Amino acid sequence: MGETAERLVEVWRGEFCESDHRGHVAVWHADAGLIWGLGDVDKVFLPRSSSKMIQALPLLETGAADAHGLTPAHLALACASHSGMTVHSDMVTAWLADLGLGDADLRCGAHYPYHEPTRDRMVCAEHAPGQCHNNCSGKHSGFLTVTRHLKAGPEYVDPDHPVQRMVKTAWEELTDETCPGYGIDGCSAPNFASTVKGFARALAQFAAANDGADARQTAMVRLREAMMAHPLMVAGEGRSCTRLMEAMGHRAAIKTGAEAVFGAIVPEHRIGIAVKIADGATRASEAVITQLLAALGLIEAGHPLVREYTHGPILNRRGIDTGHYRLTDALTGWRPAL
Amino acid sequence: MGETAERLVEVWRGEFCESDHRGHVAVWHADAGLIWGLGDVDKVFLPRSSSKMIQALPLLETGAADAHGLTPAHLALACASHSGMTVHSDMVTAWLADLGLGDADLRCGAHYPYHEPTRDRMVCAEHAPGQCHNNCSGKHSGFLTVTRHLKAGPEYVDPDHPVQRMVKTAWEELTDETCPGYGIDGCSAPNFASTVKGFARALAQFAAANDGADARQTAMVRLREAMMAHPLMVAGEGRSCTRLMEAMGHRAAIKTGAEAVFGAIVPEHRIGIAVKIADGATRASEAVITQLLAALGLIEAGHPLVREYTHGPILNRRGIDTGHYRLTDALTGWRPAL
Repeated sequence: MGETAERLVEVWRGEFCESDHRGHVAVWHADAGLIWGLGDVDKVFLPRSSSKMIQALPLLETGAADAHGLTPAHLALACASHSGMTVHSDMVTAWLADLGLGDADLRCGAHYPYHEPTRDRMVCAEHAPGQCHNNCSGKHSGFLTVTRHLKAGPEYVDPDHPVQRMVKTAWEELTDETCPGYGIDGCSAPNFASTVKGFARALAQFAAANDGADARQTAMVRLREAMMAHPLMVAGEGRSCTRLMEAMGHRAAIKTGAEAVFGAIVPEHRIGIAVKIADGATRASEAVITQLLAALGLIEAGHPLVREYTHGPILNRRGIDTGHYRLTDALTGWRPAL
Repeated sequence: MGETAERLVEVWRGEFCESDHRGHVAVWHADAGLIWGLGDVDKVFLPRSSSKMIQALPLLETGAADAHGLTPAHLALACASHSGMTVHSDMVTAWLADLGLGDADLRCGAHYPYHEPTRDRMVCAEHAPGQCHNNCSGKHSGFLTVTRHLKAGPEYVDPDHPVQRMVKTAWEELTDETCPGYGIDGCSAPNFASTVKGFARALAQFAAANDGADARQTAMVRLREAMMAHPLMVAGEGRSCTRLMEAMGHRAAIKTGAEAVFGAIVPEHRIGIAVKIADGATRASEAVITQLLAALGLIEAGHPLVREYTHGPILNRRGIDTGHYRLTDALTGWRPAL
């Protein structure tokens, strides 16, 4: 993964570069194709949760979402790695009840919420987490909605299940690649592989989609609009996806993924961005995506979030400034010609 | 940090290498000098908490430890990044009381214990953490003991404070280098820089030290013996330092540090080992040090901990095997000639 990766982010402590992060970046324009890249854009990778909007396409394309009266907030949750705040788990629980299903029908596994106050309340109340608290439970509720709609079997994370076959078909069409395989994700769903540029291409199709053009494009518009309209549903309080989307004010849909993947859909520029940090460090993927969003003018370069994610400071236990991030020239040198 | 680093650890998911980690390794023999290296052994780095046994030398060399009746468990705690279990925080609190001091005299800052059951008990009891719960509070109690013994001022983390000047002198003598500077650590103490091989050299001096030879060597013996005799005091339940030292049965003293540093003192072979992963990922520094300890025969290659840290499996939320670690040939090819 790292052999051909470009150095992107340095972590400084005092006068020493203490650690650094390398990775791959691809920016794809729906009309012009690949307009920028760093590292190896042909690298095959697993986009993990940053591809949830692709995994949600069957939910709309089959008509399942409308048949079950799903709102944009539900669609945002289907694309989410949520923090398990009450607003997330309550919506999942109600959604499953509407389907005549319950927590046991999910196949994502249980874990405590990422949102610490919620986790702590549950721990202190001796309330064990359910699968509804899993950060992927919205995606899985979407899968279950399609499964019910198609009257398919309950093992919807099986790679041969109709819903996963539909995801794979959409995946190959949007990336314009023959999918080289999949990994099993933290939530047990198959996660399809592509090149970095192929994933950027897929996100560019979301960016350039027109409502009403066809079922696929309409689905892509609805999902990207849902994510931008409901940043809190896509992640949670204090999380980078939520904070950056709120700061951009409906100008981009962005999504993080495990092992330091980040994807962005930018409708006004008709581009998709894919970021993969070779070592899997989220602090670096957050720094890189923030820099690219700022370079595109989607968030002011002087916005406090830009400084926080791309520079720091890195504070210690007493709030003392011990260091900072520094982005490499390869990354900061990009001047988008759009 | 990463330019000259060697690829050491791969993270696989299904048939894809999803992430990887590069780094620097130095193995120093007290008599033969540098006997093996990977990456750039001349790289300057910050050893962070893996250097706590060096930072504890003034505690013994000044006579402060004996004047205050410190036991081997106290010495192990002075070298610890502890988990804030009751056994740790209680010892710190009693230690400070013996000095006529209290929590407010520490300069490490407060944070909740790493040990989750302890943290959860405190949260549910609305018991805010003190500085005694800081993972570095044992080191700081050691600093305070020296400070009291020398009747020096209370701001013991000031780089010009007598205790820090003594640490720096020991640092330069053991690394045989002019210290190029320091960073401020998470606990606010200065953390001195060295080359990777210089730090391995320092640890080799600990390995080869003879009790009674001189004050420095006696201090080094007492600290390494204290760490090996009290693995739980050096880290905590479930932590790699504790588990690996327990498994090795008093054959090596090892210590992790933030940003993926690991150090090892191996008395029977008179060697010191320094590991720095360029990107700061602890999963990789743990894999590398475990492999090296196994290569040295200090832990059976078939021990479950060796497989856990060097291979996995990486399980998901439902306990499904989704992937594993794979060490590169550069690392596994080492056949120590000792």
